[in-house]
Amino acid sequence: MNSHINKLIEGFLESYKKGDISTDDFLEHIKDLYFEDIGFAKVDHHRMLRRDFPEVIYGNNKTAEQIVEISQKILKYSKILMITRTDKDIYLMLKKKLKGVTLKFSAGIVYTPLDINENELKEDITVICAGTSDMKIADEAAITAYLMGNRVNKIYDVGVAGIHRLMSFKDQLKKSNVIVAVAGMEGALPGVVSAMVECPVIAVPTSIGYGASLGGIAPLLTMLNSCSPGVSVVNIDNGFGAGYTAGIINRNK
Amino acid sequence: MNSHINKLIEGFLESYKKGDISTDDFLEHIKDLYFEDIGFAKVDHHRMLRRDFPEVIYGNNKTAEQIVEISQKILKYSKILMITRTDKDIYLMLKKKLKGVTLKFSAGIVYTPLDINENELKEDITVICAGTSDMKIADEAAITAYLMGNRVNKIYDVGVAGIHRLMSFKDQLKKSNVIVAVAGMEGALPGVVSAMVECPVIAVPTSIGYGASLGGIAPLLTMLNSCSPGVSVVNIDNGFGAGYTAGIINRNK
Amino acid sequence: MNSHINKLIEGFLESYKKGDISTDDFLEHIKDLYFEDIGFAKVDHHRMLRRDFPEVIYGNNKTAEQIVEISQKILKYSKILMITRTDKDIYLMLKKKLKGVTLKFSAGIVYTPLDINENELKEDITVICAGTSDMKIADEAAITAYLMGNRVNKIYDVGVAGIHRLMSFKDQLKKSNVIVAVAGMEGALPGVVSAMVECPVIAVPTSIGYGASLGGIAPLLTMLNSCSPGVSVVNIDNGFGAGYTAGIINRNK
Amino acid sequence: MNSHINKLIEGFLESYKKGDISTDDFLEHIKDLYFEDIGFAKVDHHRMLRRDFPEVIYGNNKTAEQIVEISQKILKYSKILMITRTDKDIYLMLKKKLKGVTLKFSAGIVYTPLDINENELKEDITVICAGTSDMKIADEAAITAYLMGNRVNKIYDVGVAGIHRLMSFKDQLKKSNVIVAVAGMEGALPGVVSAMVECPVIAVPTSIGYGASLGGIAPLLTMLNSCSPGVSVVNIDNGFGAGYTAGIINRNK
Amino acid sequence: MNSHINKLIEGFLESYKKGDISTDDFLEHIKDLYFEDIGFAKVDHHRMLRRDFPEVIYGNNKTAEQIVEISQKILKYSKILMITRTDKDIYLMLKKKLKGVTLKFSAGIVYTPLDINENELKEDITVICAGTSDMKIADEAAITAYLMGNRVNKIYDVGVAGIHRLMSFKDQLKKSNVIVAVAGMEGALPGVVSAMVECPVIAVPTSIGYGASLGGIAPLLTMLNSCSPGVSVVNIDNGFGAGYTAGIINRNK
Amino acid sequence: MNSHINKLIEGFLESYKKGDISTDDFLEHIKDLYFEDIGFAKVDHHRMLRRDFPEVIYGNNKTAEQIVEISQKILKYSKILMITRTDKDIYLMLKKKLKGVTLKFSAGIVYTPLDINENELKEDITVICAGTSDMKIADEAAITAYLMGNRVNKIYDVGVAGIHRLMSFKDQLKKSNVIVAVAGMEGALPGVVSAMVECPVIAVPTSIGYGASLGGIAPLLTMLNSCSPGVSVVNIDNGFGAGYTAGIINRNK
Amino acid sequence: MNSHINKLIEGFLESYKKGDISTDDFLEHIKDLYFEDIGFAKVDHHRMLRRDFPEVIYGNNKTAEQIVEISQKILKYSKILMITRTDKDIYLMLKKKLKGVTLKFSAGIVYTPLDINENELKEDITVICAGTSDMKIADEAAITAYLMGNRVNKIYDVGVAGIHRLMSFKDQLKKSNVIVAVAGMEGALPGVVSAMVECPVIAVPTSIGYGASLGGIAPLLTMLNSCSPGVSVVNIDNGFGAGYTAGIINRNK
Amino acid sequence: MNSHINKLIEGFLESYKKGDISTDDFLEHIKDLYFEDIGFAKVDHHRMLRRDFPEVIYGNNKTAEQIVEISQKILKYSKILMITRTDKDIYLMLKKKLKGVTLKFSAGIVYTPLDINENELKEDITVICAGTSDMKIADEAAITAYLMGNRVNKIYDVGVAGIHRLMSFKDQLKKSNVIVAVAGMEGALPGVVSAMVECPVIAVPTSIGYGASLGGIAPLLTMLNSCSPGVSVVNIDNGFGAGYTAGIINRNK
Repeated sequence: MNSHINKLIEGFLESYKKGDISTDDFLEHIKDLYFEDIGFAKVDHHRMLRRDFPEVIYGNNKTAEQIVEISQKILKYSKILMITRTDKDIYLMLKKKLKGVTLKFSAGIVYTPLDINENELKEDITVICAGTSDMKIADEAAITAYLMGNRVNKIYDVGVAGIHRLMSFKDQLKKSNVIVAVAGMEGALPGVVSAMVECPVIAVPTSIGYGASLGGIAPLLTMLNSCSPGVSVVNIDNGFGAGYTAGIINRNK
Repeated sequence: MNSHINKLIEGFLESYKKGDISTDDFLEHIKDLYFEDIGFAKVDHHRMLRRDFPEVIYGNNKTAEQIVEISQKILKYSKILMITRTDKDIYLMLKKKLKGVTLKFSAGIVYTPLDINENELKEDITVICAGTSDMKIADEAAITAYLMGNRVNKIYDVGVAGIHRLMSFKDQLKKSNVIVAVAGMEGALPGVVSAMVECPVIAVPTSIGYGASLGGIAPLLTMLNSCSPGVSVVNIDNGFGAGYTAGIINRNK
Repeated sequence: MNSHINKLIEGFLESYKKGDISTDDFLEHIKDLYFEDIGFAKVDHHRMLRRDFPEVIYGNNKTAEQIVEISQKILKYSKILMITRTDKDIYLMLKKKLKGVTLKFSAGIVYTPLDINENELKEDITVICAGTSDMKIADEAAITAYLMGNRVNKIYDVGVAGIHRLMSFKDQLKKSNVIVAVAGMEGALPGVVSAMVECPVIAVPTSIGYGASLGGIAPLLTMLNSCSPGVSVVNIDNGFGAGYTAGIINRNK
Repeated sequence: MNSHINKLIEGFLESYKKGDISTDDFLEHIKDLYFEDIGFAKVDHHRMLRRDFPEVIYGNNKTAEQIVEISQKILKYSKILMITRTDKDIYLMLKKKLKGVTLKFSAGIVYTPLDINENELKEDITVICAGTSDMKIADEAAITAYLMGNRVNKIYDVGVAGIHRLMSFKDQLKKSNVIVAVAGMEGALPGVVSAMVECPVIAVPTSIGYGASLGGIAPLLTMLNSCSPGVSVVNIDNGFGAGYTAGIINRNK
Repeated sequence: MNSHINKLIEGFLESYKKGDISTDDFLEHIKDLYFEDIGFAKVDHHRMLRRDFPEVIYGNNKTAEQIVEISQKILKYSKILMITRTDKDIYLMLKKKLKGVTLKFSAGIVYTPLDINENELKEDITVICAGTSDMKIADEAAITAYLMGNRVNKIYDVGVAGIHRLMSFKDQLKKSNVIVAVAGMEGALPGVVSAMVECPVIAVPTSIGYGASLGGIAPLLTMLNSCSPGVSVVNIDNGFGAGYTAGIINRNK
Repeated sequence: MNSHINKLIEGFLESYKKGDISTDDFLEHIKDLYFEDIGFAKVDHHRMLRRDFPEVIYGNNKTAEQIVEISQKILKYSKILMITRTDKDIYLMLKKKLKGVTLKFSAGIVYTPLDINENELKEDITVICAGTSDMKIADEAAITAYLMGNRVNKIYDVGVAGIHRLMSFKDQLKKSNVIVAVAGMEGALPGVVSAMVECPVIAVPTSIGYGASLGGIAPLLTMLNSCSPGVSVVNIDNGFGAGYTAGIINRNK
Repeated sequence: MNSHINKLIEGFLESYKKGDISTDDFLEHIKDLYFEDIGFAKVDHHRMLRRDFPEVIYGNNKTAEQIVEISQKILKYSKILMITRTDKDIYLMLKKKLKGVTLKFSAGIVYTPLDINENELKEDITVICAGTSDMKIADEAAITAYLMGNRVNKIYDVGVAGIHRLMSFKDQLKKSNVIVAVAGMEGALPGVVSAMVECPVIAVPTSIGYGASLGGIAPLLTMLNSCSPGVSVVNIDNGFGAGYTAGIINRNK
Repeated sequence: MNSHINKLIEGFLESYKKGDISTDDFLEHIKDLYFEDIGFAKVDHHRMLRRDFPEVIYGNNKTAEQIVEISQKILKYSKILMITRTDKDIYLMLKKKLKGVTLKFSAGIVYTPLDINENELKEDITVICAGTSDMKIADEAAITAYLMGNRVNKIYDVGVAGIHRLMSFKDQLKKSNVIVAVAGMEGALPGVVSAMVECPVIAVPTSIGYGASLGGIAPLLTMLNSCSPGVSVVNIDNGFGAGYTAGIINRNK
């Protein structure tokens, strides 16, 4: 159970007992926790209780105004805010309204850094990618896992065209609890990595490539057909989904 | 590290010390552990050491003779034998050569049951499926997870066309460590389940359906596009891969 | 039978009887009702008689001049004008030539509002969408149904990733005569909604999503494979077609 | 609200009052109405209450034993039984266990005929198909609509390659409340029919054809792209879904 | 046999007899007729002899300089010049270098008009299109057929959503020798037209549409699956190919 | 105008004048010409008048009884009968009921041979195919063209893998009025043939091939993308459609 | 230049000089070398001269009689005969008519063994495959290369799921002149092999797999997208094409 | 074994012996040869040793800074630098930092010219393309082969629509050791070329075309289905891969 939202509820209860807030106010807060209706969106505060991580805002196809308004609502009950597929302009607008937000430019993510000590982070999630061009998606996965309380090992540009590069990271890979493996083009990396380790591998195909890569369909199919069991796959370029899955796998380890 | 294979190696060492086997014999055993070459196959005994689970025989496109020969090799260094996509005829032939094998007819799997107590099995893997027709694949996942040492909860025929059936299993779902969700046709089940729980959901699309289900492509795409993070996907009808992934996620919990 | 066009014909007859218009003029009007040939287009005035709703102008790939000219022709025999997939520039040009037109910016639609009382609108069409990004298409459906004489209930941003949001609108859904359900990405919403209600659900897949959503093919397939009977599907992003179908279903209820 | 199931509940209540059944028995019946768990299936009796039509058994991929068992359960609370995609062998087995079932051989459907008078059936659903080979699917739609209480007009083999055949049925088409239009190959029929009428058209693509018909994908795409609004589409060969949708559209007319 | 190129050869022969050109000059001209090598292109003058129509320049992906140079070469042995998929800028540059060229803006074609009398044109090619947006491709077909010496009847915007518009042109269609039928979206027009006439119909799918039109794949499939024999199909948006085929069919009629 | 059907009508008129048939009988015959309704089919006798060739029976998915019944109806007003995609069993059954039918086993066609002199056949249709395995489809095209009154030149097994074979038939190809070119696998033949001749080429992709031929999609795409104008394409394996199109092109030459 | 066919021609010349054969006989032989027309086939004897390897008979879709007749023709001018995709029945029929033919059952190939010494075979072609199920295709490649005069190294069942198996053959791979790499499912093997060696790798995707392997499309795409240059790809299951390509690459080494 | 890198290593050894560099320095150099880690990339210097050609930089999706940094690293151990899919801006920035680099504008390639004599280049690689628009990809192949030490014959714009152009280069084609054949649209060129020659043909499909060319999928399928053995295929637009494969095939000839 999430401690932040619990503390909020306890706070409301206390205020209520003290008479600082009325019964109506208290019920309003509790009702909000179910979800908050702001017309164009129904903000799912309950997700914090249900899944221990707030709704993440998918920035694409949303106006700046919509993002700001949803962000403000989320921060009422969550200390974590995460907006994916966004850009510098949205960031600059958000920064004026909300304090503490940070932009990871290369990953297109705006987020609020954790306020815990480095050494409180959990160990042993590794994010690995095949090529320099896959870094954006790998970073999306890494930040997501970080926001779920993990210190992430990054191993970038170790595709199978020079397999000795990959082999030299064997020890680091073998001691991981869960690995996110990101690759475009032929997408062979997750299968080869999985065959070297015991832990689950979350495979992320990317849209990097051309021609018969079909915008990421080729590596997606490669990963789904992996001969090495233990590989499971998320959508093309879905670094967030992979990082999230890695985070919940690592939660109770 | 796998205890069975460790005991075997210790046994060889002891026999060697006693002079029961020669240096050559000993080395031959160790070399075998790397892989054993039987012409049409290179049996990967090393997988037992590397991944703590033996090579699994994919029965499709293999002759009965090939399956028997590979099975015998695997049982040299593993107490676990698992053959998927096989049938009664192969089973009857195997039974003559190998003792202790069992057929799970509905899942098309031949395997050797574990020789441990029921209560030594790990808890909290759930396998759930949308329709009666998805049972074959769900059972493939369940047996795989079982062979990795788990007691599996099964919840079958709870597709979203009658969502109250699913809701009535909410508590059982919420206390799972990992869920395998199997569905054909529209494939909406894993996303809906994931939204209800905290743990990772391994989604298995099945080829059950017709027309625009495109042999399982439709539920595959649904699952890859799931709005609920925490869902990762394996190949169409790949119950084995899903059960295996669930097994390694549950290992250190 | 449409009353507006009937009145026009009666008017022509009266004028003819009075001698205000010649036989030729009268025949010309009647011939026009078949269709009016303006070179690059054959305006189908007969549709008003045949289907009780005028030709709707699909704005894409048409020049502003073409749109204006077809609009003027349509308004000769219809009080309703509707232009989809258009934008502010076209609107501003139309406003100069035609009075009474309105722009629904978010839906990319220019139309002439109905001149009837609010309480003359029919009840019980609901338009529901999964995410904030699907609003544009949902609005296209809602305006279309409105122009056919309906008051539309809107329930937006209630996707299956937080299914309690959807459940809280159960009563409103259950009393609908027909529901338009709009969703991108995994497209599971229409099937889940259909399973909760008795009435027909018109499903609209949207192109919202990325990677394996394949520009809307993924939710399209999901909806076509829905396990819940009562779901029928229109083209990707075709809010207009869905709203129109809902309108004719609700006509005689 | 369905009258048959209401009468059953009233009967239980009466028996309870009289002391013929215990409290436990009564609760068991009510619990069953939620759903009945028979291991490989969770029979959704609640559907009768929720949607006024029982679960329909999709015969494909189910064993004869499974079909018989589910059928018996459904008939506990429903007078209607419908099994699609089944065959003569299943029928002969069912006939031994269940009285009153009938086989529509050409449509692959086993069902229980309605016990109401012919003249109690609702009018004005039309099922139309393009070619003789599409009859199987058209019949599936027609029987479904019939079981929902409708008398169905059938117009078969009127494809657009001889459009005068279609035109000669114009009056019958125009007075329909809803039309199910079935076509394979090019799939142009539903769009052409829709342009002639005011009512909704449910389009069913069939897998009849070869080569570039791609197993029904070609007519599916044609129908989704129909220029005539009012057409909505179901899965390839899904006569049942189309008949069902027509049935609920016609319910309150 | 093409008369223009024959006259050129006779001219060379005469000049040679008179001694105005040397043997070498004569041979050079004859060799050119095989093909002329200008490095980035091998201009196929022989096509004029072989097919009685010169190479047509496909403007896409060629620089203005390349187009000008190839054009000049073609005009050495042909009085016809045709450049497709080009635009105003290329036209303005060509006009400076080559006299007599004309731009058909809406069709993106630059060409040299025929220098024959209107009444020398052959009759009875019809170009028909379904929607206003298909005009560009229809015009490409019409100009091509014109440059092959035909007067073309155009019937635009007569799609099947208002089939009475099409029917009113029945006589004109029935007396055609060959019809080019252009349609996007559902692409049903060519099949319906073919069923009304005796002559061949060349079907041109267009990329007009959205969503499940898949950039023209949907109408392409519709046309290939036409139930009416006599329909043959060219590439999506290939008005030129259709006009050319119509031209050679009409040649000897 | 078709002479056979004209003679029939004249015969009816004469019988009527003589009083041999009543007014009702006469009208019945004329009504039949529109179409004849036999329940599962609406036989389109009018096609004979409209298109000068009767309905052709597509044998696939029809029962023997249906084929016999439709055949008998067609022969009432046509001397030509053609059934495609049929087999020896259907033939043997037909032979008992209908005299004069013949089976072309290799092409799967049953038909009634023409009763005209060999030298009354039109010249100059060529059917060419790439490989021995494409013969079935090539024969389907050839018989169709023959039944339309043409003597067909056949050039089989001249694929581009040995292009000198094709070149040796250059003269025969160049004097054709229209060519049907049949090819599977890479499907390059029609484009290469078209570049050698002036006349139209009807391209027929076949499903011969494996793997990436995708059941004929590969040669279909090749043909649609042909660089040589004058190629138009019919459905995969649609020899009938190609032969028919060739027949109507050659009609008035 | 092929020595066998040269000797034949020299033999004809000598016979002619001696007067054993007439001028006509001699010309007939020479004409045959161009191609021999046997109606359903044009046997390309010229291929022996042009490409130094005879036409290979693709057995699929050919009758036994056709295969026998073409085989006899090929053996007139070639000592090599090769029939792919054939089976035991065809073999038994061939054996009666032609001496010296052999069946490789597992590869579905009938051929005439070379009559040269083992040590005359060229070295250094390697055929490698990922799984036991890929052996059929690997054998097809190996026999083809053998018939072109090569001794082939075979390394089977060394897929990337146990990459140490592959690594142990590094030296053998590195000294190859050309490698044929065969794999189904994920198809990663050729790319990984290519990255280890200097020589060209001919990649053969197989149809081994299920679900998202799409009949071999998945490994085909993987191989086309290989990050390691030096990989080129043939059709799915085209062992023959790969072996042939390897053979001509190795010819002049 | 590559001589340049060997000389570097010998140089290091000598310096070490002389005491010019320390043991640590020496080991650092040797370690670098394995790969050099610069964070966002792991530069694979070992490739020079392993494959005798350095890593080639794929310019797409990389920033200018990344390209410059990787280039500098590559030039430490290689005299060859090659950057594909780049443009003038990147070139101008590189030129400032690195001397000796050249831009081939039309091919989008920056490279360092070889410093060997023209006559040291190997003969007999031919690059051929179908149309003027395919030149960019053909040039990419030609430059790659040149950088591997070959003089390349170029034959451009000889597509099958004017096959006499191709035939006139027969001799040049026949004496090639390996041919790269580049074509878009229908992609028939490589198969036709292969049938004329003995040597291997590397086929490159291009994305040139429209509509049913599907961005190069059509010519890709054509080439994979080529009836002429000896054709192998690389990714759409992958001129580099084809040139590289040609280079290694020609290496030891």
